[in-house]
Amino acid sequence: MSSRLVQLRHSTGETRQDSVAVEEPLEIRIHYGPLQQPERFVFSTTMRTPGHDTELTLGLLLAEGVLQWDEVLPESRQITINELSVFLPPGHQFNPDKYRRTGYTSSACGVCGLTSITHLLERERPEPATNVVVPKELLFELPQRMRPQQTLFEATGGVHAVAHFNLSGELQCLSEDVGRHNAFDKLIGTAMLNRSGPLTSSIVVLSGRASFELVQKAAASGVPILMAVGAPSSLAIELAERVGLSLIGFARPTEFNIYTQPGRIKL
Amino acid sequence: MSSRLVQLRHSTGETRQDSVAVEEPLEIRIHYGPLQQPERFVFSTTMRTPGHDTELTLGLLLAEGVLQWDEVLPESRQITINELSVFLPPGHQFNPDKYRRTGYTSSACGVCGLTSITHLLERERPEPATNVVVPKELLFELPQRMRPQQTLFEATGGVHAVAHFNLSGELQCLSEDVGRHNAFDKLIGTAMLNRSGPLTSSIVVLSGRASFELVQKAAASGVPILMAVGAPSSLAIELAERVGLSLIGFARPTEFNIYTQPGRIKL
Repeated sequence: MSSRLVQLRHSTGETRQDSVAVEEPLEIRIHYGPLQQPERFVFSTTMRTPGHDTELTLGLLLAEGVLQWDEVLPESRQITINELSVFLPPGHQFNPDKYRRTGYTSSACGVCGLTSITHLLERERPEPATNVVVPKELLFELPQRMRPQQTLFEATGGVHAVAHFNLSGELQCLSEDVGRHNAFDKLIGTAMLNRSGPLTSSIVVLSGRASFELVQKAAASGVPILMAVGAPSSLAIELAERVGLSLIGFARPTEFNIYTQPGRIKL
Repeated sequence: MSSRLVQLRHSTGETRQDSVAVEEPLEIRIHYGPLQQPERFVFSTTMRTPGHDTELTLGLLLAEGVLQWDEVLPESRQITINELSVFLPPGHQFNPDKYRRTGYTSSACGVCGLTSITHLLERERPEPATNVVVPKELLFELPQRMRPQQTLFEATGGVHAVAHFNLSGELQCLSEDVGRHNAFDKLIGTAMLNRSGPLTSSIVVLSGRASFELVQKAAASGVPILMAVGAPSSLAIELAERVGLSLIGFARPTEFNIYTQPGRIKL
């Protein structure tokens, strides 16, 4: 379901079979309001790799401020492979106007940049644990500890991974998806279902780059250290600074760059 | 403007300076309707690297079917660094309801998958030139011909590139952005401004993976051959097959995979 075999022609002329990552749209619907007169709101349509759709949805709703870590989880129901419905409990104060878009919104969005930074800073979010300090040697190891669990990447070469580790460097959970933001949402949603969140004593590692949106998800989860194998963007650094998150980029087996809050890493 | 110097702490303990790619939101507004009573519609907010915002906007509007290749280009005006307005000529039949979203739309979106395939197939789009055939040896060379122009990647390591070549393998244009879909939009918009499009006799090369959205943009531009250095997704292959585009993935200096329409490549 998350990968599919396709026939292809190799440049040698041979016909071969290979696995590709599945990409399919998921429409996420929120049902809310009084039991007698429930309302329905299409919250998001995202291109994702099918599987763990409930986790993806819960994680997205947490990252966007619809759900909180200490809340009773809403029921969710997979309607078709491309549609998932979430039923908020009757008392839930959901305001669809906060999430309405007037127009077409493209990639990496819903994050309306600076507005969104303000919105996020005003929102309640878990604080990273105090006194987190980890040695750099431990961080050097983490990307390679992910590899054995990146099975979809191994099969397809076409997906991102996001993982979280405890402060001893033990892998707790890893998620994969064609979209790195989805992989992070799945990770958050899994922690919500497991009751193992928020991630205030976790190191989160991204297989790719760190954009604004990924720092936003880390901040909403109380993550103290976010480490990316790729480059960070300017807005990712700015947000990490403002929320007090340690942002690491270009993670390699023997070196990395720390862009913000270096005090948590023992050099 | 497209990159910024930041101070960072290297894992050796040294303080260093490095360039990071700028990521900022752009709100794209469409002004349309009668001159006496113009209407305004927020078409999109996208996280992008500033620079070539007019090209980005024109390319996005072309890829989404608002503009056509043979049309007089609308005026556009940069209001602030984060806002751009496009003024459609009074006779333009723009229907905002086609682009309205009820909810929050996340990454790689506006592409509502299968609906969008149908929508795209129904739409008028330029046909790739007939009898395009290129030798594989020429294709092997193209990614390395891009490198000298990937100056923002060279400086930051944090952006994608999209380039188009003529059928002799000569580089015509290259665009970079933190978002690969934006880089493609900038490429299309540049061809619109230059009057060098549609790209029906072009080979387009992507520095990363090929998702549905990128094949959609190639199809809207009449591109016969789309080559990605990374992996294709399942939906990218499906759409390429349906629009008759030759999709190549995992492009390396001595090999690649052809997923659809191999007839255009001489092996």
